[in-house]
Amino acid sequence: MNFSQPIIDPFDYVVFGGTGDLARRKLLPALYLRDLDGQLPETSRIVGSARTDMTGEGFRELVEASLREFIADKLDPEVLARFLARLHYVSVDAKAARGWPELATLLSDEPRQIRVFYLATAPELYGPIADNIHAHGLQTPETRIVLEKPIGHDLASARAINDRVGAVFEERNIFRIDHYLGKETVQNLLVLRFANSLFEPVWNHNGIDHVQITVAETVGVEDRGGYYDHTGALRDMIQNHLMQLLCLVAMEPPATFDREEVRDEKIKVLKSLAPISRDDIATKSVRGQYRAGAIKGGPVKSYAEEKDIAPGSTTETFAALKVEVRNWRWAGVPFYLRTGKRMPEKVSEIVIQFKPVPYWIFPTGSDHAMPNRLVIRVQPDEHIRLHLWTKEPGPGGLRLRNAPLNLSFAETFKNNHMPDAYERLLMDVVRGNATLFMRRDEVEAAWEWTESILDAWKSAGDRPKLYTAGTWGPSEAVAMIVRDGRTWFDEQAGYGAGD
Amino acid sequence: MNFSQPIIDPFDYVVFGGTGDLARRKLLPALYLRDLDGQLPETSRIVGSARTDMTGEGFRELVEASLREFIADKLDPEVLARFLARLHYVSVDAKAARGWPELATLLSDEPRQIRVFYLATAPELYGPIADNIHAHGLQTPETRIVLEKPIGHDLASARAINDRVGAVFEERNIFRIDHYLGKETVQNLLVLRFANSLFEPVWNHNGIDHVQITVAETVGVEDRGGYYDHTGALRDMIQNHLMQLLCLVAMEPPATFDREEVRDEKIKVLKSLAPISRDDIATKSVRGQYRAGAIKGGPVKSYAEEKDIAPGSTTETFAALKVEVRNWRWAGVPFYLRTGKRMPEKVSEIVIQFKPVPYWIFPTGSDHAMPNRLVIRVQPDEHIRLHLWTKEPGPGGLRLRNAPLNLSFAETFKNNHMPDAYERLLMDVVRGNATLFMRRDEVEAAWEWTESILDAWKSAGDRPKLYTAGTWGPSEAVAMIVRDGRTWFDEQAGYGAGD
Repeated sequence: MNFSQPIIDPFDYVVFGGTGDLARRKLLPALYLRDLDGQLPETSRIVGSARTDMTGEGFRELVEASLREFIADKLDPEVLARFLARLHYVSVDAKAARGWPELATLLSDEPRQIRVFYLATAPELYGPIADNIHAHGLQTPETRIVLEKPIGHDLASARAINDRVGAVFEERNIFRIDHYLGKETVQNLLVLRFANSLFEPVWNHNGIDHVQITVAETVGVEDRGGYYDHTGALRDMIQNHLMQLLCLVAMEPPATFDREEVRDEKIKVLKSLAPISRDDIATKSVRGQYRAGAIKGGPVKSYAEEKDIAPGSTTETFAALKVEVRNWRWAGVPFYLRTGKRMPEKVSEIVIQFKPVPYWIFPTGSDHAMPNRLVIRVQPDEHIRLHLWTKEPGPGGLRLRNAPLNLSFAETFKNNHMPDAYERLLMDVVRGNATLFMRRDEVEAAWEWTESILDAWKSAGDRPKLYTAGTWGPSEAVAMIVRDGRTWFDEQAGYGAGD
Repeated sequence: MNFSQPIIDPFDYVVFGGTGDLARRKLLPALYLRDLDGQLPETSRIVGSARTDMTGEGFRELVEASLREFIADKLDPEVLARFLARLHYVSVDAKAARGWPELATLLSDEPRQIRVFYLATAPELYGPIADNIHAHGLQTPETRIVLEKPIGHDLASARAINDRVGAVFEERNIFRIDHYLGKETVQNLLVLRFANSLFEPVWNHNGIDHVQITVAETVGVEDRGGYYDHTGALRDMIQNHLMQLLCLVAMEPPATFDREEVRDEKIKVLKSLAPISRDDIATKSVRGQYRAGAIKGGPVKSYAEEKDIAPGSTTETFAALKVEVRNWRWAGVPFYLRTGKRMPEKVSEIVIQFKPVPYWIFPTGSDHAMPNRLVIRVQPDEHIRLHLWTKEPGPGGLRLRNAPLNLSFAETFKNNHMPDAYERLLMDVVRGNATLFMRRDEVEAAWEWTESILDAWKSAGDRPKLYTAGTWGPSEAVAMIVRDGRTWFDEQAGYGAGD
């Protein structure tokens, strides 16, 4: 079944922050790969824009160097030449008038109906850039603006950004991106749930015991200490990535697979989240901060010693939550979330643990009756595995084995290029397909719930528990789930062990 | 999980019909393979027995030649020598006294607690052999008798055999074998159903649309025309193999995975089968007989022209049934059964077709919403496949693909030897484990139901529809399922098409 690809009209793609890290690592390589696949109309242009003075030639050199650094194995000389010829550069001051007339001239030279302004910048520039786009008449009826996370740092600042950008752009043209939603396995989760009749009947409190969502990084704060120390793990990861994954696992079937319907269902989940109050934080939340330790055998310093961290900082670099979704489908099914820096592994993963069979009829103790699990690995090695009991072949006694079944169909699809999430999402913007982007009310609802926890921590004066870098966070995170008679999922033994 | 293998005491295995086709192709190779796996106690003996006069040496030569013919790739010189040294031969007359004293002497030479008498003979010899075993005092407390199908040719003859064998052996020592129950995939079906929580909630009229069971052969009647012409497809295949498969799909969870409990549940299914009366035969049954045609490109003759077939024979070589299981779990879920000779492919397969999703939210017509299917291939290439919709990787529009997922875990278990069904079953007899064998009441219940159809056909004077050899039976078999808005499952296109 092939949902036909809409024909794409020529478009211009303007990347603010065009010389920055995200543009170099992700956005420009993704656009190149779409060009390689023949998906960019011949006359489409890509315009880099940043404060830095740079010539078009300089920008092309920068981009070529980036492509050679990050996707060297995909470079085709002919496509590379064609791609580089699409590139332009205009230096602009986001907060002032400098450069905007030049950008306007460039865009009006060969006017395209479809324009995309991708804001790979700090959130405080979102408002000023939107204003300037308006002031310089850069909007066509098909002009879209893409906002990277975080949208603000709390509900009030998110609202302020949404108000200001919303004064210039209609909501349907504002694309708030969370690249987790562009992951193959995340979309496959929706297909598995809603195109098959096998899972949905058990996808609720009758069939599911609990859900775990883990987003673990091995890196520390790197050179983002100044930003991170005012942010913390809850704002940086849970408010966006983990909330989005939770919504897709928990949402009701949408009326159609369409942007408004999908987002209507996601926001219903966000509105069903039980707030975590000051009374709950001891049992439903764990904050952690890493101390010195080792990652892959090499010593790493403590958070407190990182660059630009305030003395005595109580910012959390790890957070674990026990989340309750208050609705008919999920009552009584906890969602355990955890995220942290300086973990032993880089992994983003959803684990759906089904209820055990009601009774174990096979001739061994029921302690062997490990329940079925569906494991959705979002990164790094995307896959979906269903852990089922099966009979081990052999003529002797009946031996059972818990075997992970690969639902990502790597074998079936081995000839397909596994695209990066940005490849899909950048083109979805061009096509005006916002299904995999966040609507204003979603972002704000996620902030509202997140703020309940931030407020509870603050009013309780909660200080993070220290954990050794290279471990799975403070032992309190293990205790939180063990109190419920459960454990963090551990695919390769050791994963899930506490500090 | 490894259900510990019971330690096996030394035993003697006596095979009546020891020079016959089944012994040569299946039983003796299976015993050799158990020896190769180190599963035969050092002093265990294997005694071939038949009417033919033959020396022990002659029998060993016959067996060695059979092993070289059927499992040449598994022969190990050392194991072969050890295995041949276990072999003995005694010529006996099943219906008279000749040879029995010699057999008694051989067995009492080195008395073993565990004795197995395997009757690979015509069913009319079952009674006489049991009598002779008794008359010559060959029973130890751990002596078992194995009866091959068919147990009689109708309810009355089955009862007569069961009565006569039952006068000598306790029911717990009578092993009625159906080698389909020893198939890996058939046992795996029970593990999938009862060790996992994912399938059972949908394993009923809410989740399953219908079930198909196909047992197709490419061969004709070969040199068994005399036997077959008095038997037909219903007695030869449906009464045993297809009924057994139906029972395992349909049975309730047993109290334990134990012989009486499993068989108690199977007989409940047999007792729930709606009889097919004379009024139903036109809509719920199809009889067929092959006419001349072609198999794999070579011409083959009609059934009427085969050796030993009565002129104007109305014996069916194909039968298809629509079966209703009258209980809470299965009300409204038809089981479509079909079996035949001279089909295009040799295949035995169960197809569980789940209900479609209640509503198709993806952007294509709902005609694409093919429901999930679980396909259990019993032979020739044993596997279990779950057909699920999944997202096809790619950055373009959302493409879905119906992908067959391998639940046989060939990858996971590639180092395991896939045993033949007889390997397991022959050793289950030694261990006294009758879970995978048929109890007296099961055989009789299956005959009772089968007779309802035979009687209906007879009283209606139903004549078989002719079908061309090399096709999937008469077009009426297709019409029977198409009337219900369904089709026979077709994995490789073409499979399922009628004549």
